[in-house]
Amino acid sequence: MTDWGTCLTTMRQGAPLVQNITNYVSMNVMANVMLAVGASPAMVHAEQEAAEFAAIAQALTINIGTLSAHWIASMKAAASIAAQQGKPWVLDPVAVGATAMRRQAGRDLLALKPTIIKGNASEIMALAGEAARGKGADSADSVADAEGAALALARASGAVVAVTGPVDFVTDGSRSFRIANGDATMPRITALGCSLGGVMAAFAATQPPLQAAVAALAYFGLAGEIAAETSQGPGSFAVAFLDALHSIDAGTLSAGAKVTEA
Amino acid sequence: MTDWGTCLTTMRQGAPLVQNITNYVSMNVMANVMLAVGASPAMVHAEQEAAEFAAIAQALTINIGTLSAHWIASMKAAASIAAQQGKPWVLDPVAVGATAMRRQAGRDLLALKPTIIKGNASEIMALAGEAARGKGADSADSVADAEGAALALARASGAVVAVTGPVDFVTDGSRSFRIANGDATMPRITALGCSLGGVMAAFAATQPPLQAAVAALAYFGLAGEIAAETSQGPGSFAVAFLDALHSIDAGTLSAGAKVTEA
Amino acid sequence: MTDWGTCLTTMRQGAPLVQNITNYVSMNVMANVMLAVGASPAMVHAEQEAAEFAAIAQALTINIGTLSAHWIASMKAAASIAAQQGKPWVLDPVAVGATAMRRQAGRDLLALKPTIIKGNASEIMALAGEAARGKGADSADSVADAEGAALALARASGAVVAVTGPVDFVTDGSRSFRIANGDATMPRITALGCSLGGVMAAFAATQPPLQAAVAALAYFGLAGEIAAETSQGPGSFAVAFLDALHSIDAGTLSAGAKVTEA
Repeated sequence: MTDWGTCLTTMRQGAPLVQNITNYVSMNVMANVMLAVGASPAMVHAEQEAAEFAAIAQALTINIGTLSAHWIASMKAAASIAAQQGKPWVLDPVAVGATAMRRQAGRDLLALKPTIIKGNASEIMALAGEAARGKGADSADSVADAEGAALALARASGAVVAVTGPVDFVTDGSRSFRIANGDATMPRITALGCSLGGVMAAFAATQPPLQAAVAALAYFGLAGEIAAETSQGPGSFAVAFLDALHSIDAGTLSAGAKVTEA
Repeated sequence: MTDWGTCLTTMRQGAPLVQNITNYVSMNVMANVMLAVGASPAMVHAEQEAAEFAAIAQALTINIGTLSAHWIASMKAAASIAAQQGKPWVLDPVAVGATAMRRQAGRDLLALKPTIIKGNASEIMALAGEAARGKGADSADSVADAEGAALALARASGAVVAVTGPVDFVTDGSRSFRIANGDATMPRITALGCSLGGVMAAFAATQPPLQAAVAALAYFGLAGEIAAETSQGPGSFAVAFLDALHSIDAGTLSAGAKVTEA
Repeated sequence: MTDWGTCLTTMRQGAPLVQNITNYVSMNVMANVMLAVGASPAMVHAEQEAAEFAAIAQALTINIGTLSAHWIASMKAAASIAAQQGKPWVLDPVAVGATAMRRQAGRDLLALKPTIIKGNASEIMALAGEAARGKGADSADSVADAEGAALALARASGAVVAVTGPVDFVTDGSRSFRIANGDATMPRITALGCSLGGVMAAFAATQPPLQAAVAALAYFGLAGEIAAETSQGPGSFAVAFLDALHSIDAGTLSAGAKVTEA
């Protein structure tokens, strides 16, 4: 089994510059999360510079949470550069099934070969072409419901697919893992899921994508468990979560990761 | 007298999906506030999907804090759908008197029949066509100054009008209420007022708008009172406020609501 | 030597209305910081109203962290009004050397005569036309490396130039100051540097720009030192920092400012 703490050390030693084209709701939290974990985030999304910056960055995150026509153009341009240069990029298809615009954006971005696709069960099912029951950005389907879709999507796209939920499921189409770290408060704080996409990209900058996705999930979930110990509600949880991301070291992660191969 | 705690229980049981077209400053806080109260927020504003999503959501909030031409088009499209489908929608006319663009946006949105209009005294006076003395997003007029404007606006528009301040005033043009909950720190934290609009929409999803506006104000203000007990400044206040929104239950609200019929 | 505490009192008594055209990542934090210090922030950036609002505001901040073609037009229009009316405006050239779009925006805004230019070493060197080694929004150059560029830029542009880092350097081209307040956690929290630009603008609304920039830096850094005493990581640091900005009074700042004339 991989030593997940070593993955964290590797990511921090690289301190990778990660470009994030993400929604307005999550930008601040995502930047803070990525600084707390030890990466170097850059939120660059304008059509006139997104692709130019993608050529500088070591990894890229694309999150479709708040879309517009201009942003979709930036996303495609940046993803194309990342794909051409063989740089890892993470697709977070937020609420991809909810509107026609999102379904089209999801299809177009999928064609640009994301390295990792991260979503809740409803999003992964929708992106894989299955019927899904999302409620805005929340999933109405269970992780177990989406395992088949995740495997099919991984095999069809070549991406590592991560389905988030109480127990996460990650697969590259042949090997699969389950990660049981986390806390029930996490989905009640906006932008934590989005931020996770950026953390996966930071890990993937210098590590294989399957390992990167699993390590990021265990680390993120463990920070949630630690935050839950001292918090009194979603406000104090968010504060303690950032503190925990920063304070967790390799030994803590190796001891606390709840990862099993499926 | 309405049991305000029961209103809270009703809102939480519905866990309504609320679409919020709000300003960039408030998006993250508003989403967190709505998750903390037990609603399901969705921040969807693109022209290509705002109206489509409004047909899915159970209620809608439109906040003109940060405007652009594209966003105004989205706001009108979404509000039109809500009005057509008889879904409640809340208008928050931030700084409506400050620039020509805001005055026009205010008039255009008012014509689309908001269910609830929520603003500070200067905003309500400006929207009602009276002289007002706003300073950016802050009011330079008192709630008492705006009561006449609120009554006139409610009668002319058919909306419930809520004037926020140290003691809030809410009217549907015939019945009026004053709500004395709150804390002086609240206006010193950005986006709390904006977030209140979303909470009103969540209550209004399944309850009459007058009752929804009053219950939301009492609940919000009570959370501020609880936050003030443990905070040392605006940073810790914001954290404790989210915790309080989450922890207040029906009994606490019923006991703590300071509502009188005017 | 100036009494820095008196500068704080003067700023708070004015409670200036400051327009901020800033990046999406920082909007919320910057508004909260400015409310905590005692100013009145307004985040107005639309092309249709940015210049109109600049004529109302007492000072202006322009931060190029997240750019688009429309925003650049707004920035130029607002800066032109401020320059015409003799109102102080602060330029924060975030990552100005990173892409062609940023280099052009930096040159165009510089031509509109900012009152204060605030950046990290790499940004000031890039804006002054020197070779710089920025990594996204982070500096890869030291403050000492940038002192010559800061002096040259101040003399060429007529602006006060502030280089931020472990020890900040501020110059108007003839007099120069070093400010040793601050804490190493500050650069690990996104948007604090952006928020500092707004605080400088608030001080400059009613005070000479050299004095304003130095006072803002000492105050900001001192708040960081106080926050560090009670925080456990970047999450709790950000909370304690806002509390400290609010609680620091003139006497505390006068006693704690670590300012020396260079």
